[in-house]
Amino acid sequence: MNLLEHIEARREDHLAELKEFLRIPSVSTKSEHKEDIERAARWVAEKLRQAGLENVNISQTKMHPLVYGESLHSPGKPTVLIYGHYDVQPAEPLELWTSPAFEPAVRDGNLYGRGTADDKGQVHIHLKALESLNKTVGNLPINVKMMVEGEEEVGSVSLWDYVKQNRDRLKADALIVSDTSMLAKGVPSVTYGLRGLNYYQVEITGPVQDLHSGVFGGAVPNPITILAETVAKLHDKNFRVTIPGFYDDVATLSKQERKALNSLPWKEKDFRKTVGAAALCGEKGYTIVEQLWTRPTLELNGIWGGYTGEGAKTVIPSKAYAKFSTRLVPNQEPAKIAKLVERHFRKLLPKSVECKFEVLSTGKPWVAPYTDAIFQKAIDALEKGFGKKAAFIREGGSIPFVTQMYDTFKVPCVLMGFGLPDENAHAPDEHISLENYFGGIRAVALFYQELAKT
Amino acid sequence: MNLLEHIEARREDHLAELKEFLRIPSVSTKSEHKEDIERAARWVAEKLRQAGLENVNISQTKMHPLVYGESLHSPGKPTVLIYGHYDVQPAEPLELWTSPAFEPAVRDGNLYGRGTADDKGQVHIHLKALESLNKTVGNLPINVKMMVEGEEEVGSVSLWDYVKQNRDRLKADALIVSDTSMLAKGVPSVTYGLRGLNYYQVEITGPVQDLHSGVFGGAVPNPITILAETVAKLHDKNFRVTIPGFYDDVATLSKQERKALNSLPWKEKDFRKTVGAAALCGEKGYTIVEQLWTRPTLELNGIWGGYTGEGAKTVIPSKAYAKFSTRLVPNQEPAKIAKLVERHFRKLLPKSVECKFEVLSTGKPWVAPYTDAIFQKAIDALEKGFGKKAAFIREGGSIPFVTQMYDTFKVPCVLMGFGLPDENAHAPDEHISLENYFGGIRAVALFYQELAKT
Repeated sequence: MNLLEHIEARREDHLAELKEFLRIPSVSTKSEHKEDIERAARWVAEKLRQAGLENVNISQTKMHPLVYGESLHSPGKPTVLIYGHYDVQPAEPLELWTSPAFEPAVRDGNLYGRGTADDKGQVHIHLKALESLNKTVGNLPINVKMMVEGEEEVGSVSLWDYVKQNRDRLKADALIVSDTSMLAKGVPSVTYGLRGLNYYQVEITGPVQDLHSGVFGGAVPNPITILAETVAKLHDKNFRVTIPGFYDDVATLSKQERKALNSLPWKEKDFRKTVGAAALCGEKGYTIVEQLWTRPTLELNGIWGGYTGEGAKTVIPSKAYAKFSTRLVPNQEPAKIAKLVERHFRKLLPKSVECKFEVLSTGKPWVAPYTDAIFQKAIDALEKGFGKKAAFIREGGSIPFVTQMYDTFKVPCVLMGFGLPDENAHAPDEHISLENYFGGIRAVALFYQELAKT
Repeated sequence: MNLLEHIEARREDHLAELKEFLRIPSVSTKSEHKEDIERAARWVAEKLRQAGLENVNISQTKMHPLVYGESLHSPGKPTVLIYGHYDVQPAEPLELWTSPAFEPAVRDGNLYGRGTADDKGQVHIHLKALESLNKTVGNLPINVKMMVEGEEEVGSVSLWDYVKQNRDRLKADALIVSDTSMLAKGVPSVTYGLRGLNYYQVEITGPVQDLHSGVFGGAVPNPITILAETVAKLHDKNFRVTIPGFYDDVATLSKQERKALNSLPWKEKDFRKTVGAAALCGEKGYTIVEQLWTRPTLELNGIWGGYTGEGAKTVIPSKAYAKFSTRLVPNQEPAKIAKLVERHFRKLLPKSVECKFEVLSTGKPWVAPYTDAIFQKAIDALEKGFGKKAAFIREGGSIPFVTQMYDTFKVPCVLMGFGLPDENAHAPDEHISLENYFGGIRAVALFYQELAKT
């Protein structure tokens, strides 16, 4: 049986095994899932061994363990370092899932469940591509190092220490990451740009205690109102961020790249349908693709304060909170932006309230010079694996690690993503298309085979 | 033993019995407390009988039962209708209570617990004043009707039907209500004005589903941002409400009343201490007392949307919510104001979002013409009961029922409140001063005795 026949024959086995992975609720942001995280790490280690990798180990970190394995039996052939993460976003709001978040289910050609697309399904594509190569070719045609972390959804807090401590061991000719989306169904893609991400939390305190809104209303600072008023000042009417200096370091897009991006088979109609809002809303002067991939943003991710239960409670709360984030593009510096954001936010506040401002995480943006031959091999493998034309795209999401790896090792980073724009990565009913999952296994296996021909 | 000696001798018994009442978590806004509500109603009925009232009954309503009792054995003497409520506000946030909300505890001369001040403690003052009169004088010197409802904290939704259906039975020469606060510790007070209350809830929907803030951020309507921007437009920089027509019907205060209110022994220092914020914040051109008692307000009571848990989640939520209320003053019409608020709120929203706007409750403001002799008798009884000079005050809170009763029966409404401005009526660590609780029993008993002399 050849490689593609083997992959075809094992479809049901592969899918059943992925479901097993998805049933582990490895939510990294919540301490109550500590044991699930550890179980997921052990599961990944086991599958690395099964794929033929050696020296498999689970490294303890300050937070969640990192799993590593390698196969270095092809001297003279290229070495790739594959990256993925086994942790997932929280599943809340649970009531909005059609089937439970941690009980994977197939419907209409999609596999539903938390982590299907981001990123367990994509990690599993690599595990099964490697295993399939091993079982059909007899050994891996290239040298492989694979590293699967458990902290991606909390800003990869330990990853960088690990990389620095294992710099020699991790050295490779290319970094391969599958944690992104294809441009659209039927358009396999290589991503060459990501936005960076800074995440903030603010706590606004007005009165020292909750007060009755009848007895005290009209004379005291209401932290909800003040938070809303402050947040409202962070964008102008053209949806530009008003923070002084925010756009200073944003690189101008070349005419050529702008043209290429706007010529992609990207369907605004599909995007509008996924969003489902009565109208879109973005920075004036840029196309939607440019807004999503090449422009920095400031988005509110959460807000809370006062009474949020059933019925009425006439309270002026002591505190109100917000979580928000800035997506960054080349050449914005995360640390500089964090300072600008905090300074401006504090400046906007009246003297009547106190503010605790936290920067929960920072991450740099990244754009690849995709002239290296490996990028063309990736495109070719995707076209063969899917039987469709592939595309070079950018993405609005963030993988801070890619930037750091590129800065450190100065090797090409190939981002082959198998998610889809409507996959609900961080929302209820997250899913991966089965076409992409199986196409992904074929494309990745073919890509590694192709790399051996260098 | 005379009246005051009897009250003094029974101190510990009265307090123990009040604690029993406070231990029932009769939270009317939450359906899970349905049984507690019913238990509290039965408890009140039992104590009405114990106080010597007859024809005691518990009336079922559409929501929570109403308890009634009467004693009509003093022909030729005045009849009073006493009003109170046995339901309480939710106790959340529970972690901010020094001792548990439903386990009453005495500390530093105060009794702590949900309902101590609002309104179980004050209802109990009347129950024990009546009982003490009965036990020492032998019978009640005036005719008494007492009505204790279980829906005050949810807008007294059934009360009005009850009053209309029992109009003849409830007829009285005066309405007596103890559900307000004294001006300050040591200043027993009669309240002659209350603000009205309209309560609203809005749900803003942007995208039809939660979206990843990386993949979609920068091009879609974020309901949190839009809610914040809308709410921020409801006040101008002088903290005036910007809703067109909001102030149109506000009655101008006479110079005389303005002077009287601003001459009260009201301590700004104590108010600032209770609030504890770095600065106050209210409508320009008015003193704090005027802002609190005579000016309408719009206050945010709750806001929520997106991720509010531990750590970071990069989501753009589908929905964001707010609860807010307007306090109303004479001669604002609640229904008219509700229409103005909804119309303006909707007008402020961009086309990109949908809005569900609910008016949860409405309630009229009230001001008494306090020239009737009964008000002076109330002041005299308070001065005797407390041994302190008493004051005529207004209050910022709302008892919609008072307005409705005044409109219907056209009899004086006497509001003798025994709470204190820092009692945390709707917040953690709600309490009543023991001095006020015991002074209240004395003053109310003396007041009823004095009324018999008419």
